[in-house]
Amino acid sequence: MRILVTGGAGMIGRKLAERLARDGALGGTPITALELVDVVPPEVPAGGGFPVGWQAVDVAAPGTAAALVEARPDVVFHLAAMVSGGAEADLAGGYRVNLDGTRALLEAIRVMDGYVPRVVFASSIAVFGAPFPDVIPDDFHLTPLTSYGAQKAIGELLLTDLSRRGLLDGVAIRLPTICVRPGRPNAAASGFFSNIIREPLAGRETVLPVSEDVRHPLASPRAAVDYLLRAATLDAARLGDRRALTMPGLSVRVAEQIEALRELAGDRAVALIRREHDPVIAGIVAGWPRAFATERAAELGFRGESTFAEILAVHVQDELGGIVPAVR
Amino acid sequence: MRILVTGGAGMIGRKLAERLARDGALGGTPITALELVDVVPPEVPAGGGFPVGWQAVDVAAPGTAAALVEARPDVVFHLAAMVSGGAEADLAGGYRVNLDGTRALLEAIRVMDGYVPRVVFASSIAVFGAPFPDVIPDDFHLTPLTSYGAQKAIGELLLTDLSRRGLLDGVAIRLPTICVRPGRPNAAASGFFSNIIREPLAGRETVLPVSEDVRHPLASPRAAVDYLLRAATLDAARLGDRRALTMPGLSVRVAEQIEALRELAGDRAVALIRREHDPVIAGIVAGWPRAFATERAAELGFRGESTFAEILAVHVQDELGGIVPAVR
Repeated sequence: MRILVTGGAGMIGRKLAERLARDGALGGTPITALELVDVVPPEVPAGGGFPVGWQAVDVAAPGTAAALVEARPDVVFHLAAMVSGGAEADLAGGYRVNLDGTRALLEAIRVMDGYVPRVVFASSIAVFGAPFPDVIPDDFHLTPLTSYGAQKAIGELLLTDLSRRGLLDGVAIRLPTICVRPGRPNAAASGFFSNIIREPLAGRETVLPVSEDVRHPLASPRAAVDYLLRAATLDAARLGDRRALTMPGLSVRVAEQIEALRELAGDRAVALIRREHDPVIAGIVAGWPRAFATERAAELGFRGESTFAEILAVHVQDELGGIVPAVR
Repeated sequence: MRILVTGGAGMIGRKLAERLARDGALGGTPITALELVDVVPPEVPAGGGFPVGWQAVDVAAPGTAAALVEARPDVVFHLAAMVSGGAEADLAGGYRVNLDGTRALLEAIRVMDGYVPRVVFASSIAVFGAPFPDVIPDDFHLTPLTSYGAQKAIGELLLTDLSRRGLLDGVAIRLPTICVRPGRPNAAASGFFSNIIREPLAGRETVLPVSEDVRHPLASPRAAVDYLLRAATLDAARLGDRRALTMPGLSVRVAEQIEALRELAGDRAVALIRREHDPVIAGIVAGWPRAFATERAAELGFRGESTFAEILAVHVQDELGGIVPAVR
């Protein structure tokens, strides 16, 4: 089985590549080749018993997508995207990467004869926008309030239409906010969900810009990779003509996150969280979803974490070598 | 006020142009210029007290959209589209006209400085797809089952995102099936809703390919033009960030259509309807919506017909010179 991953240098792309290298197979079929693509050079994971290639190219550039699928990968993970804040700041750039790039990739597949790969498209809960019901059902309308969300919704529509026509075999999964994101704090409005865990565990102060009552759906990076793998191997006949699935996310209050951190690492860790209300971030977050009823995903076997302690444990195992640091 | 109409040669475009010529004003403001655009030469309506220009051009062709909006029309009615059956038969052509054409037009407006026209986009209930609840609410998800529906949904998303950013002032209205369509019977699967009225009134036999129990939302051509005019003049602040509105349609059974025809034109007219079950058309129609709860539109003052007799009366007044023909 040949696999192509766009956005292979991103956080999820890197973890997906590592997992594929570790597993050596996808859905029981041995992997024979993995190609990682991004605008910056992706890291090649160690230990895969199969050749791993990489390219630093722009999927939206003319001819690039056609070259990428020429080798007819059986599964295409399309993760490449300009992030939410970036696509909001750079309107033309966001449409180019997130809409034109996606369309170019799907179009390159469409025009090939007898080639119908599984295409897993990383969508986002940003396809939904306030006002929301308290728990958002699977059949809630697409009302994005960011250009990123609009572009992801358009990607879902393209993927679904071409799948209905049998020209590719697409599954779009709407990822909730990923927590705990490894690496340095970033400028994303959602950054604090991860910062308030990762930074104290590293002995560093961090800022909580919103109320502890904020509730939001979260899933670990490991869960996100599990979702991608399941989307790559599920029986698409079970999806009918609705190829987009909202993924499970643990609907958790910030206060619960903090209590789980206290359980794990003690009061000293929690003391590193400085409350500093930021009306801009609080305003953005007020428009975000609090919870989803992800019944379709559950029926199809997608499982997220059920406590925040589980999400914390994933972070400790996958990022901290399994050792809970002593915070002084 | 300057007005641009794309799709000006289509049935709705022609009726809109006639209405604008008759009214001489839009929302109380005198019309100073009307430009009609289509891929075939549009008809110039008689009697407008203002200059009417026309062009036979393809909005999706490079540079065309920019030239069309150069005169900065205050209101743009974007009706140009490849129809449902056409876009299903010609995948690349449908995406070119319905997606690229719409994007080119919106993009041409976006890049102009200080130009924020009202853009009225003719969308369709084809943005929804089965399985449906019996009555479809305003917040039902976008699940098109045709390429045409996917393209209209994408147009809504583009229009909404650029409106949210203040780069244009868009309103998308999802039109129900229009009945009674004037002109010759066409190959559209929905054609029978109009054929079973128009043809008998003209003394011609026609075929009903589905059960009389089929229920579907209908609005007259005159109602469709009213919707467009209201969308052009409503206070968009009342829409918030949800720029797409499902329009009222009278949810009517075919049997009720036939009884209204009998009331109007007698048994001889009804006798011209030949029942000839077509399993293909019946199958397509089985996947269509039966009724919408168009509460948002109602709050904004959009009103459709409330009996099929009203829809019939519009046909007699607007197409038959107000005279009910004697059917022999």
